[in-house]
Amino acid sequence: MEEEQLRALLHDLDALKQRPDDPASIDRMRERVVAMLSPASGAASRSKIKDMSAEVVDSNPYSRLMALQRMGVVENYERIRDYSVAIVGIGGVGSVAAEMLTRCGIGRLLLYDYDTVELANMNRLFFRPEQVGMTKTDAAVQTLSGINPDVVLESYSLNITTVKGFETFLESLKARSSHGRSTGVDLVLSCVDNYEARMVVNQACNELGQTWMESGVSEDAVSGHIQLLVPGETACFACAPPLVVASGVDERTLKREGVCAASLPTTMGVVAGLLVQNALKYLLNFGQVSPYLGYNSLKDYFPTMEMRPNPQCSNPACVQRQKEYMDSKPARDAAAKAKMEAEASAANECPVHLDNEWNISVVDDEDTATSSIRSTADVLPEGLVRELPAADLYPEPPAAASSSAIDDDLEELQRQLDALNSS
Amino acid sequence: MEEEQLRALLHDLDALKQRPDDPASIDRMRERVVAMLSPASGAASRSKIKDMSAEVVDSNPYSRLMALQRMGVVENYERIRDYSVAIVGIGGVGSVAAEMLTRCGIGRLLLYDYDTVELANMNRLFFRPEQVGMTKTDAAVQTLSGINPDVVLESYSLNITTVKGFETFLESLKARSSHGRSTGVDLVLSCVDNYEARMVVNQACNELGQTWMESGVSEDAVSGHIQLLVPGETACFACAPPLVVASGVDERTLKREGVCAASLPTTMGVVAGLLVQNALKYLLNFGQVSPYLGYNSLKDYFPTMEMRPNPQCSNPACVQRQKEYMDSKPARDAAAKAKMEAEASAANECPVHLDNEWNISVVDDEDTATSSIRSTADVLPEGLVRELPAADLYPEPPAAASSSAIDDDLEELQRQLDALNSS
Repeated sequence: MEEEQLRALLHDLDALKQRPDDPASIDRMRERVVAMLSPASGAASRSKIKDMSAEVVDSNPYSRLMALQRMGVVENYERIRDYSVAIVGIGGVGSVAAEMLTRCGIGRLLLYDYDTVELANMNRLFFRPEQVGMTKTDAAVQTLSGINPDVVLESYSLNITTVKGFETFLESLKARSSHGRSTGVDLVLSCVDNYEARMVVNQACNELGQTWMESGVSEDAVSGHIQLLVPGETACFACAPPLVVASGVDERTLKREGVCAASLPTTMGVVAGLLVQNALKYLLNFGQVSPYLGYNSLKDYFPTMEMRPNPQCSNPACVQRQKEYMDSKPARDAAAKAKMEAEASAANECPVHLDNEWNISVVDDEDTATSSIRSTADVLPEGLVRELPAADLYPEPPAAASSSAIDDDLEELQRQLDALNSS
Repeated sequence: MEEEQLRALLHDLDALKQRPDDPASIDRMRERVVAMLSPASGAASRSKIKDMSAEVVDSNPYSRLMALQRMGVVENYERIRDYSVAIVGIGGVGSVAAEMLTRCGIGRLLLYDYDTVELANMNRLFFRPEQVGMTKTDAAVQTLSGINPDVVLESYSLNITTVKGFETFLESLKARSSHGRSTGVDLVLSCVDNYEARMVVNQACNELGQTWMESGVSEDAVSGHIQLLVPGETACFACAPPLVVASGVDERTLKREGVCAASLPTTMGVVAGLLVQNALKYLLNFGQVSPYLGYNSLKDYFPTMEMRPNPQCSNPACVQRQKEYMDSKPARDAAAKAKMEAEASAANECPVHLDNEWNISVVDDEDTATSSIRSTADVLPEGLVRELPAADLYPEPPAAASSSAIDDDLEELQRQLDALNSS
């Protein structure tokens, strides 16, 4: 596309050299250069698409996504165009998350970051060396609008941890709020790299009753996590006081003292993938959204856990959301019961397995239903429950395991805490 | 960078309009346009770097990678420059794997694909709409050389499943073979999307005794896997006859009949990340390389297993490599024993835990060492062992679980088979 224009320019220049008295050709060249400079030049490589089609032709950028419907994974893929997602932090995880959602055809993306692109960011996916010096939000909009002009992009180059930045952040989330939605966005993805910014996202989402997902990568680059936070329903980021925080040191100074955290495009790519996959499951209503999922890359171990809200949480907005959630319990129980009864009567009407690859059918067993109801008696007095599977559930590697299991558990716990807190 | 050049061009054009009799300015503009057209123009945004530095400055693209040494994760990160990796299939997984390795500063990348970029590929990461119509290898080299000019890129636009293509594939892998290496590459990553191409990679690697890693994503886009294959030591791709293959149908026709597989940037990004992370662990000698790792995105469940080679394998080269591996057993045993003894004497000299966050120390227990030695008595007569954890090891989700456990197991098994075989 651009190459073509450059070749045409070359041709014009050659012609001009033959006949130097042609001012019209200079104007023509000028137009070409301006077209190449315009931010829309990337986007011009494909026009906007009004309706997502499932047609299987090479020119349809949505065919492989709409195939999710035919495969029975998603009931209505095109609904993705109705959704707005805010991404806070457009770094190694956030930028890749933004690209994934853009390529999936999300309706609207709100991007927040205050930083600029540096060569030191090139060991992670997304940004390119020629974008060095641009704000991360500008560079992201440049790349994303070229990839998919159908996505509405809003970028905010600001620091959400400042008073002014926080106000703008809140206002932008609230804008376009409509019936059935407390804010103008369906989900907030936190992809920031420090504790302070996470607490700010937590504050905003608790105030607004906004569901969000947290992500993080450890400073040694080899583990990470994602977490779902539903104000009032799950633990908020302040509910479980972090055990390991940068012990009184200002995190920002840590970054400047000639010391930097390690990072890898692999770990960050995996965390972004797991994060956006869970965002898609949440938005398009398929599969199971993970409450918490860790990634220990050294062992390819993926711990899961669930955290309930802490009634003594230090965040007043969280406590308020918890109260609202408790108050709405009778209504939720009634709805759940009605749904279960409807499903049970539907199950009695048709066979359990209409058809399967091995022609095996299983008998519906009442006991299965009973055993799947979990006891809620294991709630700690403080209302906090951790369901962290022990690392030794993971099958011991063949022979190479030289360190003891206890050693591994300590390391694993330390790593999870680090991932949760310090980055 | 390019924008600067375009602005300069604009300035020159304006000047020329004022003074049309300046042929030197036309030459200057011509040079600018040629520079922008040259394939190195992207690369020009940063110059090549001779030695990787750990210096923490914004202009150092390797600071976050070299930090892996300071963090104690990798002993010698810069060794990555000595390694060559071949990637077969530059699609949704292979292109992202190539970008990750490029950003990590791998020494040399060999890229194989026969396909061209289409708009229908835009739902996965890496390729951009303006690259539609280019071969995937050319488009990849264009993007990757711009990202990191230090990586030596070799691209092969060919179909490895043809006689001619297979010959070129084998020759390119053998080129630059040196003492201590049977081929010129350290690792082959298979990122192809069909069974036939996997069998061809398997054949080549068995013939050459080349360690490789397999990857795949299911046709419904929601699960995937990676696998390590060491000829003679682990099962090869032909050792375990796939139970579910496209039942006699030519896979290539499947793609043309107005039917297409679903795909997601998330699943493919996660699989690429897990694949390259394991490649880095293998090359740079840290963590544990997974023999097999599955990814079930609906449940965020990650099954692992291990497969030993089948003495009755239909692939003669595999059987030959198995024989060589058995013959070298005494030498390997002696080396392992010597290493274990050296480690044991080192462990006796220093305390088990010098220091840890909780000041807990554990006592070295002989029993721990004994229990970590795994029984090898569970080998099947055919020499085939599957260590697939049951899906119900995964904690049952809170309440939403409506389907029975048996149903889940069948689905899980089907999905794993699909991931292994059909894509």
